[in-house]
Amino acid sequence: MAKERANPPFDVRKLSIAMHGSRKSLLLKEKFMAEISRDPAFYLADIYDLSKDQIRERTMEKFASLVHYVTTEPLDVFNYRMQLISTVDPGFWTRFGVHFGLFLGAIRSGASPAQFNYWIDKGVIGLNGVIGCFGMTELAHGSNVAGVETTATFDEKTDEFVIHTPHLGATKWWIGGAASTATHCAVFAQLIVKGKRHGVKTFIVQLRDVKTFQLRPGINIGDIGKKMGRDGIDNGYIQFTYVRVPRAHMLMKHTQVSREGIVVDPPLAQLTYGALLSGRIAMVADSSNTAKKALTIALRYAVVRRQFSAGKNQLETQLIDYPIHQRRLIPYMAQAIAIGFTSLILTKMYNVRLYHALEGWLYLTLSNFLQELTEAMETLEPGDPNLKDVLAKLKETHSTSAGLKAFCTWACLETIDKCRQSCGGHGYSAYSGLPNMYADFAVQCTWEGDNTILSLQSGRALISSWADAKKGKTLAPGVAYMSEKSNVNAKSSGKLDLQDIDQAWACVATNVVRKAAEDFAGHIAKGSSKDEAMEKCSQSRFIAAKLHTIGYIFRMFRRACDEQEEGPEKQLLSDICRLYGLWQIEEQGASFLKYAYFNAQQMDAVQAEVDGLCASLRNVVIPVVDAFALSDHVVNSPLGRYDGDVYTAYFNHVCAANPPNKEHPYFERLIKPLLERKPLDEEDVDAAMGFSEELAEMEKERKAKK
Amino acid sequence: MAKERANPPFDVRKLSIAMHGSRKSLLLKEKFMAEISRDPAFYLADIYDLSKDQIRERTMEKFASLVHYVTTEPLDVFNYRMQLISTVDPGFWTRFGVHFGLFLGAIRSGASPAQFNYWIDKGVIGLNGVIGCFGMTELAHGSNVAGVETTATFDEKTDEFVIHTPHLGATKWWIGGAASTATHCAVFAQLIVKGKRHGVKTFIVQLRDVKTFQLRPGINIGDIGKKMGRDGIDNGYIQFTYVRVPRAHMLMKHTQVSREGIVVDPPLAQLTYGALLSGRIAMVADSSNTAKKALTIALRYAVVRRQFSAGKNQLETQLIDYPIHQRRLIPYMAQAIAIGFTSLILTKMYNVRLYHALEGWLYLTLSNFLQELTEAMETLEPGDPNLKDVLAKLKETHSTSAGLKAFCTWACLETIDKCRQSCGGHGYSAYSGLPNMYADFAVQCTWEGDNTILSLQSGRALISSWADAKKGKTLAPGVAYMSEKSNVNAKSSGKLDLQDIDQAWACVATNVVRKAAEDFAGHIAKGSSKDEAMEKCSQSRFIAAKLHTIGYIFRMFRRACDEQEEGPEKQLLSDICRLYGLWQIEEQGASFLKYAYFNAQQMDAVQAEVDGLCASLRNVVIPVVDAFALSDHVVNSPLGRYDGDVYTAYFNHVCAANPPNKEHPYFERLIKPLLERKPLDEEDVDAAMGFSEELAEMEKERKAKK
Repeated sequence: MAKERANPPFDVRKLSIAMHGSRKSLLLKEKFMAEISRDPAFYLADIYDLSKDQIRERTMEKFASLVHYVTTEPLDVFNYRMQLISTVDPGFWTRFGVHFGLFLGAIRSGASPAQFNYWIDKGVIGLNGVIGCFGMTELAHGSNVAGVETTATFDEKTDEFVIHTPHLGATKWWIGGAASTATHCAVFAQLIVKGKRHGVKTFIVQLRDVKTFQLRPGINIGDIGKKMGRDGIDNGYIQFTYVRVPRAHMLMKHTQVSREGIVVDPPLAQLTYGALLSGRIAMVADSSNTAKKALTIALRYAVVRRQFSAGKNQLETQLIDYPIHQRRLIPYMAQAIAIGFTSLILTKMYNVRLYHALEGWLYLTLSNFLQELTEAMETLEPGDPNLKDVLAKLKETHSTSAGLKAFCTWACLETIDKCRQSCGGHGYSAYSGLPNMYADFAVQCTWEGDNTILSLQSGRALISSWADAKKGKTLAPGVAYMSEKSNVNAKSSGKLDLQDIDQAWACVATNVVRKAAEDFAGHIAKGSSKDEAMEKCSQSRFIAAKLHTIGYIFRMFRRACDEQEEGPEKQLLSDICRLYGLWQIEEQGASFLKYAYFNAQQMDAVQAEVDGLCASLRNVVIPVVDAFALSDHVVNSPLGRYDGDVYTAYFNHVCAANPPNKEHPYFERLIKPLLERKPLDEEDVDAAMGFSEELAEMEKERKAKK
Repeated sequence: MAKERANPPFDVRKLSIAMHGSRKSLLLKEKFMAEISRDPAFYLADIYDLSKDQIRERTMEKFASLVHYVTTEPLDVFNYRMQLISTVDPGFWTRFGVHFGLFLGAIRSGASPAQFNYWIDKGVIGLNGVIGCFGMTELAHGSNVAGVETTATFDEKTDEFVIHTPHLGATKWWIGGAASTATHCAVFAQLIVKGKRHGVKTFIVQLRDVKTFQLRPGINIGDIGKKMGRDGIDNGYIQFTYVRVPRAHMLMKHTQVSREGIVVDPPLAQLTYGALLSGRIAMVADSSNTAKKALTIALRYAVVRRQFSAGKNQLETQLIDYPIHQRRLIPYMAQAIAIGFTSLILTKMYNVRLYHALEGWLYLTLSNFLQELTEAMETLEPGDPNLKDVLAKLKETHSTSAGLKAFCTWACLETIDKCRQSCGGHGYSAYSGLPNMYADFAVQCTWEGDNTILSLQSGRALISSWADAKKGKTLAPGVAYMSEKSNVNAKSSGKLDLQDIDQAWACVATNVVRKAAEDFAGHIAKGSSKDEAMEKCSQSRFIAAKLHTIGYIFRMFRRACDEQEEGPEKQLLSDICRLYGLWQIEEQGASFLKYAYFNAQQMDAVQAEVDGLCASLRNVVIPVVDAFALSDHVVNSPLGRYDGDVYTAYFNHVCAANPPNKEHPYFERLIKPLLERKPLDEEDVDAAMGFSEELAEMEKERKAKK
């Protein structure tokens, strides 16, 4: 390991600062890591052996230490702290986030000013008095919020809403914090007034008595139990049986219900783009951070582990020296870095504040960028030419972030599994940290919009951008490449530099978008409705979204490289960026060949370049991983130790986690009878039949003959 | 669900028989399923909530019910039973298999006849007296058996071997059954006689007293604890500190050590192809069966689950009616069926008997096919032209099975995850069955040869077949396509039938193999050694193996279709086979375009055909899944229930698994203090400092100004 760290051709600290966006960010992260490594609530050595119930309790213990920071730390600092927490303990991050992100977010976006003050006074900010959960999804309804079936019927006689679960499928399901933490719930339900349905609104319903934690009348709550991962969060189900809440408990910033049962709808449908955008960018950052954690383990192990020797009596070869092992990991390292820079740029670009104690973290906060657009929308008259511009920008941002959420979380999940497999058998040990990381992360591909559905949304927007481009309209920056003259050819020879690769992606992404648009138009021409045609061109839409997104990530990474100061770090990052772009050209080779951007010989050259880049980057994998700046406590895997003393640490960890039993738990009951057992008794048929001696003799003879 | 089953355009039973190879196989499987569903040891409803220790004990309970069948059931029947068990409880399958497959296999392949009889008399067959484990892998050594570092030093004075673990890295690791089941171990160790090393041999070492289960002197065993999956098997570590065993405990069928310490090596290195082959084919079968189990869940759920409606007041659309959802699942259904038929044909072709109580199940048994080849090898003189033929066949079988093991297990693992994601949030619930299935199955990509390494082995053999083809030699059947005139072109128009698709795969597979061979030759030309050149062309080798293997699976499936009786079942299977072949052409599109087998327009046509096949097969997904013939007990997922009553079953399962707590486990300790807490006391600085009244006044003013 010392050899791997000797004389890196760049300054590891400088590289680390570049990857963290600033020196300040890096120092802050190091401070957080030091704090939690000393905080007994964040003791991690035993977590792979805890039961679901133990993990739940452990998670709850962490609340106390974090609540202090919520109320005292500047918002951007606390946000950054939560980003680290998400890498360290995704289950806890979720449990804590449900209250501050989802519940508080719902109140902030839905409550009138008076209502908002009421809940703040109740203690929502400091968790003193209220712990909230977010009651949106139902057993039979996930993404389709408009379809939830819980009802909130206005009772004019008593000035109350009656919250009710009409049937099993309408049971609130997956509600984080409901099983054993929350006192209140923001319930999404169909508003019914005077027998008429007015759509889904939000109602604050108290679930439990704050003093005794007893369930309130009419509330039935259960634990939904074991999940693939994130057992630290207590997801539950909730059924309401005619539960009455005061009219004031409906959040009335937008739609209002008067004492007389008059329903006043807001003039404009509300925008929720902001909410989605910041959540998605957080997931892009998390994808990079989690992938870096997995790669720290796999790459450090790959330099320590040796297998097969080149010659007799030679030391066995380090795994990382095999070209195929470089291929298994180094491109994923490049991808994790690419996604990391993408998230840094997005955060800056949209001025996303992922956390705000009053605004709600994760779920809400319109960024300045979006605030501007939203205000513009509200002030511009219909027909104003600027309005369309604004709408186009909003749409592009929305669609690009949908694609990024999908493809970055998938990329991270794949990275974790590749890392696990690259560690061979030891990757299958829970103590490697990789199995849990996979299980915890997997849900990111499903929640806040299933990845496939988000990809299609992105594809749908791309089709419409393409139509705009054809009409000669100016496109939003994220898709502007489509209106450039894209049917250019690749350089016929010579090394492909970042500019060439960028051009290749722009051209091919344009072509796959065009293909999707043509498929769509083709179905329309054959008589499909617009919706049907969209469904029928799903596969092309999906491919369009994928290529667009990868090209976008590459472009962001390239921009980050351009912005670096001259020096060896910039050179290194440019090499890593080239690797990312070229490797993805290989991965998406069918499209590059199909649209004849590259021919077969050029694709062979790309393959050779990827091989070459992997071989040259092999020499710096350890310094690069060091620059990820994840402490041993955070990585929590003996295979990924900074000092490379893998086997000793692994052995000690296994021994500590599995102390010998004083007594064998089931030797006497199960093993001993097996070891000492005789063949099953055959019944003595003769005796049972009461054969005469003569008959018995005959029988014996017959048997002997057989 | 009833609607989905109404009037299928084929006979479900006939289809099921076809997919199971024979009516007898299907009936047998149904008998096994009925038996285990009534066997209390196979109670499955609570398994997703058991702790590792509980699962271990549960697994051990199953031994007793299975041991009966080992000794009484015909071998092929028992083998088939084990195939089902592997789908139902992979952890138990492994734990049971370690003794019969690995330990007994080691004795059978390594023991002299007298030694063999000795161990049989000890009770190895019926587990009465001996439970064995298999001590091959070490902490620092996995695949490279020749590199194990445990030593077995012959002590001439006492006529014993001294088994010793010289350092931590040589600790036997991952040893299944060692932690709490085995009494004996087949230990792989370096034989040292008179100071000289003679390579790795096998020694039977007793670990525990059979009566008391106490560890024998010098033996240190520990549990290696929590794993990603298969917690039913108790993997452990073993350290030997100068443990003495009689000379007779070295298995001496091949190498022998005399009383005087003379080492006699066998004239020929032993072939272990047979062992590997049958293990690999078992894993191909398991890949198909497990994928079918996952698809049963995902496809049944996809017809029950509805999301978003096409119009107002319309019932929401079934997931499976979305073209993208068809794309997410139906091609994987085709793949699982393709792999299933491949395993049926292989089993027949090589007459593999996967289990034989005396020969050892899973691990050993030379098939008739290989027996013939092996015998031929031993009788033919060097130089005999037939010898080369025999060797070529052996090599091809070996390499094809390596590729099949790798790509089929990967395909299954991917299928499970795709199925899980397609179930949305509920796929993340442990009770869906899919998270555990993934975790259990994942190890198949690593054990018995890491998939990437096996792929490269296959690629290496393909390069050498290509060289043979260029020299005009006759190739073994599995690679014969390479010597056919492969640079033919695709049909320029019209529907691609099975013959066309087969030709496409043969041509493109030939081309990628040629590319790998050229890369290899190129590196040789540039001065690399043969080994270096092989490493340097790894990526091309990998691609060659992948395309070869997929083409092989397609060919087997096509053959199975050809062998069916005429009728609607044959038609259906041919459609499914077309889907598999075309979908994989899309997936590997880069190669098909690169070698100009298809052009861009033809690839678009392939995409459209895949869309069309998915749409038409959508109507039969439920009957096809029914033909997989997996009982609700085996599937063990409320989402995958035969009757489609998904939500009720899921709710009931969750409630049963998570009964309400009588008392909240940590309300008083953790939640109440949070809810009732006041802001942290600020110290009364003034009082603490003992300020005079005057000073205190000034201080107050200063504060007020701030």
